Formats: sequence, structure tokens, C-alpha cells
Amino acid sequence: MSGDRSDGLVAVLDAIRTSPGITQPRLVQRVGLGRTVVAQRVAHLEAAGLVAQDGLAPSNGGRAPRRLRLRRAAGLVAGADIGATGMAVGLADLSGHVLVETHEPVDVADGPDGVLGRVEELVEGLLARLTDPPPLWGVGVGVPGPVEFATSRPVAPPIMPGWDGYPVRERLAGRFAAPVWVDNDVNVLALGELRTNPAAAATGDLLYVKIGTGIGAGLVSGGRLHRGVNGCAGDIGHVAVAEADTVICRCGNVGCLEAVAGGAALARDGRQLAERGGSPVLAEALAARGDLTAADVTAAAERGDPAARALLARAGRLVGGTLATLVSFYNPGLVVLGGGVVHAGDHVLAVIRESVYRRSLPLATRTLRIEPSALGAAAGLAGAVHLVLDNLFTPDRLALWLPWGSPSGHPEIVDTPDRPSA
Amino acid sequence: MSGDRSDGLVAVLDAIRTSPGITQPRLVQRVGLGRTVVAQRVAHLEAAGLVAQDGLAPSNGGRAPRRLRLRRAAGLVAGADIGATGMAVGLADLSGHVLVETHEPVDVADGPDGVLGRVEELVEGLLARLTDPPPLWGVGVGVPGPVEFATSRPVAPPIMPGWDGYPVRERLAGRFAAPVWVDNDVNVLALGELRTNPAAAATGDLLYVKIGTGIGAGLVSGGRLHRGVNGCAGDIGHVAVAEADTVICRCGNVGCLEAVAGGAALARDGRQLAERGGSPVLAEALAARGDLTAADVTAAAERGDPAARALLARAGRLVGGTLATLVSFYNPGLVVLGGGVVHAGDHVLAVIRESVYRRSLPLATRTLRIEPSALGAAAGLAGAVHLVLDNLFTPDRLALWLPWGSPSGHPEIVDTPDRPSA
Repeated sequence: MSGDRSDGLVAVLDAIRTSPGITQPRLVQRVGLGRTVVAQRVAHLEAAGLVAQDGLAPSNGGRAPRRLRLRRAAGLVAGADIGATGMAVGLADLSGHVLVETHEPVDVADGPDGVLGRVEELVEGLLARLTDPPPLWGVGVGVPGPVEFATSRPVAPPIMPGWDGYPVRERLAGRFAAPVWVDNDVNVLALGELRTNPAAAATGDLLYVKIGTGIGAGLVSGGRLHRGVNGCAGDIGHVAVAEADTVICRCGNVGCLEAVAGGAALARDGRQLAERGGSPVLAEALAARGDLTAADVTAAAERGDPAARALLARAGRLVGGTLATLVSFYNPGLVVLGGGVVHAGDHVLAVIRESVYRRSLPLATRTLRIEPSALGAAAGLAGAVHLVLDNLFTPDRLALWLPWGSPSGHPEIVDTPDRPSA
Repeated sequence: MSGDRSDGLVAVLDAIRTSPGITQPRLVQRVGLGRTVVAQRVAHLEAAGLVAQDGLAPSNGGRAPRRLRLRRAAGLVAGADIGATGMAVGLADLSGHVLVETHEPVDVADGPDGVLGRVEELVEGLLARLTDPPPLWGVGVGVPGPVEFATSRPVAPPIMPGWDGYPVRERLAGRFAAPVWVDNDVNVLALGELRTNPAAAATGDLLYVKIGTGIGAGLVSGGRLHRGVNGCAGDIGHVAVAEADTVICRCGNVGCLEAVAGGAALARDGRQLAERGGSPVLAEALAARGDLTAADVTAAAERGDPAARALLARAGRLVGGTLATLVSFYNPGLVVLGGGVVHAGDHVLAVIRESVYRRSLPLATRTLRIEPSALGAAAGLAGAVHLVLDNLFTPDRLALWLPWGSPSGHPEIVDTPDRPSA
């Protein structure tokens, strides 16, 4: 954008977005621009229907300062958290508050046409549930595999046949006439924690470790996702762990963390225990259903089965040993643990904590907290929504909503810049 | 700073600093502010003697645009790279170009009074070597131990007795009447690479791994240092490595990376080899000087000694194995290896590379480069200087140099805002 009128517009909007109820004097301090400029920018944002007054703050003697807030109802954002076997789709307002959502099973291996087709139907269905919905301003998607963030395309995702290089952005942008961002599921979970968990927001340096069927991490550095140069930072499922192991991982190596401590490994080892008579509880579950999952192993451990507990303890030690290295290396203020294995009970959590505190640098654990995710799977949908909100308000895009915006790109929105004036 | 006159001043100066010879139209694009505002800011910076015209760019039909550059001679920056046994002290201009420097042995265990006293003398001596030096605008210091960056104080540094909590900033700021920043030596090395090695600047996501007496890493994420919440990110010397080991580390644990693969470990193992007849070359060196260092081991390997080569290969495998985990986790575009063990020859480098390429996630090594530092120890001094330049030009501090600056804080500089007009 080229005019002087737009200087600092994004900074002003971001400060109002992230500090609802901020006063104009405080806003001036926050963005580091002059009073006159900030007042003009606020006026522009109010004229565009993006910002509204939110009452008055107590006076310090002079005129009471206005409080400002985002007009969060001015637009909608869609989020889709696509997992290996289930997905959540929701619509949120511009503050990230989820208004409507739906969950259903999915097999990501069905390929992008079927899965994204279903996402589109679900978004349309949710839109239909809202009375007089404001326009959809963006779509955020999390998928269970590596993504090149700049292009929004999956890159050789191991459990997503047919998705390699698929133009997810182009497809959904075509359907919804809105910008689209795609990231891997663990980054999306980490972002969800960062934006909705106060402890995560407070530290800024954070690891989200998901122990599900596979094992992966999301890294936050200085309050923003660290994705790495190929977008695959956090892919810790295939680091070599201490114990020699004969299990061949799906990646072709042996001794990978995921192959010995992930959910699939727990199910496999639990089955072996059941078949060899090592665990009556697991044998019973196997006989009843003909198959075992990691959830059966955690359930057996909850019921006191010693062999199942030993399996979980071993997995926790292996994850904890790797995490100890990562904590010394990255020095996060918070490690959030997510995924089915963690949420099933305290056994794994206690062993992971013990391993980290025993082997990490003492200075790195001085203020470290290791917590199971309080949000659980909801962090995925929250993260998909915030993936949009974090990237939506750029100078170029903002210009489209403002009185002097050029009609290129989003004609349907620019034609009515004063539309969201409810 | 409060006036509208200062909006975007830091952004304009940063763009000129980091892109010498930038034209005013390009500057407008870079900082995202309007033409009029940018022109006013440039005029202010020129009036303050910080920015100068640098010729004209080719015309595109209209008036040829001016090129702009920092007046790098307007001020001086001092850097001190303090190692365990040696230090480098230098003076640089505002572009980071080192004008004069000096190196001498030091024993950091002598404590802060003696060591910083010597740093002060050396800076004074270097200032005396310059004819009519401009004022000193800041001091940057690297020390061989953990530092709480916000306060510039060492935190329980293992090889720096007497430094724990010492007010390095206050002491040097008192002596030189200039702001001071302190960081650990490996962060300073990483910063030096980032600011002076084009390959490092190009990737933005970078690991600097120093294999000296100890082992440590510096992390760069998105073009800035990732220090972690306690400032100890990169402290990988005490991660548990794969092999069971009986050597007790100085930290009290066993099997620490540093205790089995650092320079001190190489010297210890080399001595054992020499004493037990495992290496005639090392036995000769030991007999000649009564002691062995890591440099003796690398020298013996260069001369073809198989036992010394085996020692280095083992160290390389252990470092490489840890690095493989970190590469999968962090996905850097470049790993820079530094420290005496790396610079001594290709043996360690080759083994480290092989370990990383064998065990890291293929996507994470697709574009990865693993290179010995081209700068070597010079990166330390460069990093100490850039530690200042990266933090010096804040709105508040910049205000002091400008015509409307308040005289609080730096009276001796504000009194003569037009002084650096050489």
C-alpha cells in the first residue's frame, strides 16, 4: 500500500486486536506512533467497521479516554483441523471465538478431493446455521503431515496418500473467495495453545509435543511459530533414541522414537503382551474386540495392570529422554503435552517429567512447566482459526477494506467497505 | 519518544543500515511508510549526521533517485569476545566494520574485576590509536558462560568463578558512559555469522555449534537469536548421548556429550592412549611437553595416527548423533561448526556430516548445509560488535541524537547533536 494514510495501520489494529478495551493513550504508547497519527488510524478503522468504542476508561483528571475494541462480528473465519481419523470444522469471529463447530470421522488417506470436498460442505453447512452471517474473511487448515507453509502444499506426507503437492490453498480459495493458510497439525496445535492458553502466551518460548499414533512437536520462539527452512521443524518422531531396538520404523530406520514410543508402538507391544500371557487385562480386551489400541493399554494401566504400566513407563522414559535434550537445547518456558497417550492418565506424564528434570540442564528447568494441554483437541480448531487471524491483517489486505482501497483482489468486499456496520 | 516526528524513524534507519546504497523509492517500499514521511525521516537522520547521500541511482526516466547510506564514521562501537583462555577486543564503526583490534591471553577464572579491568584498558588503548575518534556509542561483550540477557549478568557460569551475578553492564557503562550488552560466547559467535556470513544471513534459521573445550550451540530463528526463557538455549554440552559411559561430567551426570566428545575429553582420552602405548605419535608429544591437548590429538590425526583418528571419529559420531536430533527438531538451513576441534581438520567434519545425513529427517536435510565457520574466531568479535548495533537504535535512544532529543541520559552526546559531521 502506498499512501501515507496507511502508516502504522496494521500496528494500530494489532494492538487493538490483542488488547481488547485498550485506551487511546495506551495505544499510542504500544505502537510507538504519535497521537495524531494514531487518532487518524483509529478513525479509519472505525469508518471501515473494524474497530468500535468500548466505553470509557476512568479519567485521570482530564477527559476520560475511550476504550477501543475490534468489531469482532465484522467478519468470519473458518478453521478445519484435519487429523488422520477425525476432523473438526468451525466458524469463528475476528477475535478467534468459535461460534459454531462440528466434528466427524474422516480417513485422510481418502485423498484431498474427498476430504476437502467434505470440509467445504461442512463450512457451507455451518454458514447456513448462522442468521445473516458476515462475510468469510479467511480459511485456516491443519493437516497431519509436513506442509510447505509458503505455498500451503503438503510435502511427501507419510500418512496422506494423494496429498503430496496438492494445491489446498487454491482449491479452498476458489470455493470461498477468501485467503487460505495451511500448516501441519502440531504447529496448529501449538498456535492454538499460544493464542488461547494464558500461560503459553506469557512465556512466548514454548514446545507443544503431541504423542498420538505418531510423535511430533510444534515450536514457538518469541511468540511466533518457528517452522524451519523446510517447514518441518518439530518432526521428532524419527530421532534415534537411546535403546537399541530391532523394530523397523515406517521410515526405514531402526530405533526411531515414534517406532518404540508412539501410540502405534504401544498398541503393537500391548498386543504382544496379551498374546504371550503377560497381561490378563489386555488379553481380555483383545479377546473381546479382536484388536488392541494405545487406548486399551492406557486403560489397562489405569486399572492397575503392571505390564501395561511398564509399557507406558518405557514410552514415557524414551519421550522424556528426547525431551530432556530438546529442553536443554531450546530452553522453553512451557512444554505442553497433547495427544491420546498423554490425556489417558498421569502415568506417562509423571515419567516424562521425571526424565526431563533429571537430565536437562538445571538452569533450563528452573522455571520450566510441563503440562498436559488444558485445551486438548480444541487447540487444533483454535489454532486453525488463529492461523488466519495471525496472517490476515497485512497492509495490502487491510487496504482492501478501507475507504481508499483498490478494488483489485476482493471486489465483493471492497464494493461495500461500510458493510460490517451492525 | 512521543512526537509524531519520530514515527518510523527506527525502521527507516534500519533499512538504510542493512541495505547500504538503498534508493529513497526502494526505502519507501521496504519500510511500508508513505513517501512524505520517509523523506522527512531521512532529512532528520541527515541533519543528525547519521545518514548521508551516496551518489545517484540510474534514472527510470524522471529525476535520478538518491542513494542513501549510514554515516558509519559517526560513532564507534566496542566489542569484547572473552573466552576461557583468550580474548579479543576491538573497535568498529557503525556498520560493524572492525577498525582496530587486539588479542591477548586471559584467564577468565581470574574473576570479573581483573578481566573487565583489562578489557577497559584495552578499549582505552585502542581509542588512543585512532586519530580524532568519534564518540563510543555502545559496548558488546561475549563471555564463556550463561548470561541473563535482560540484566547482562552471568548466571552460575561453571568455568567463571566470581562472575555469578556480576553487574557487567553497570561496570562498563559507568566507565564508558555508553550502553552495554552481554551475551554468552556461542550466541555472540552465532550473531557474528548471521551478520557477516552471507549464507547465514540468507537462511535466517541457523545453528552455530562450537566444539571447543566444551560444546555449545547458538540458535537463530527467523533472523534473530533464540535465547530461550532463561537465556540458556543451546546448552547442549550436557545432553545424554547414546553410549553408556563411565566418565563423570563436571555437572555430576554421566554420559554427557561434552564429557565424552569435547576438547577436554579428547585431551584426556589422548593422554590415556599415549600412556598405554596406543599411539606412538601422541606418546611422543606427551613425552616432549608433559601434557596433551585436543590440538595434539587433531595434529596426530592429521599425521595419520589411526588411534587419534578413531578418537576423533568417535567424538564426531557422538556430536553428529545429537546434531541429527537437533536438525530434525529445528530444521535449520545452515549448521556452522566452530571451535578448535572443527578447525583442526576434516576428520571430525566428515563424520559429523555423515551422522546428520544418515539420521535426520530427509526433508530436514534436503537443503541443509553443514560448514565449518569461514570466519573462525573472528565471528566472536564481529558478534560482540553487532550485539550493540542490533540493540542500539531504539526510538528512545535515537531521540537523543536528534534535534528534538531530550538531554536526559546522554547529555554529552545530546549537547552536540551536529558533532558527527565529518
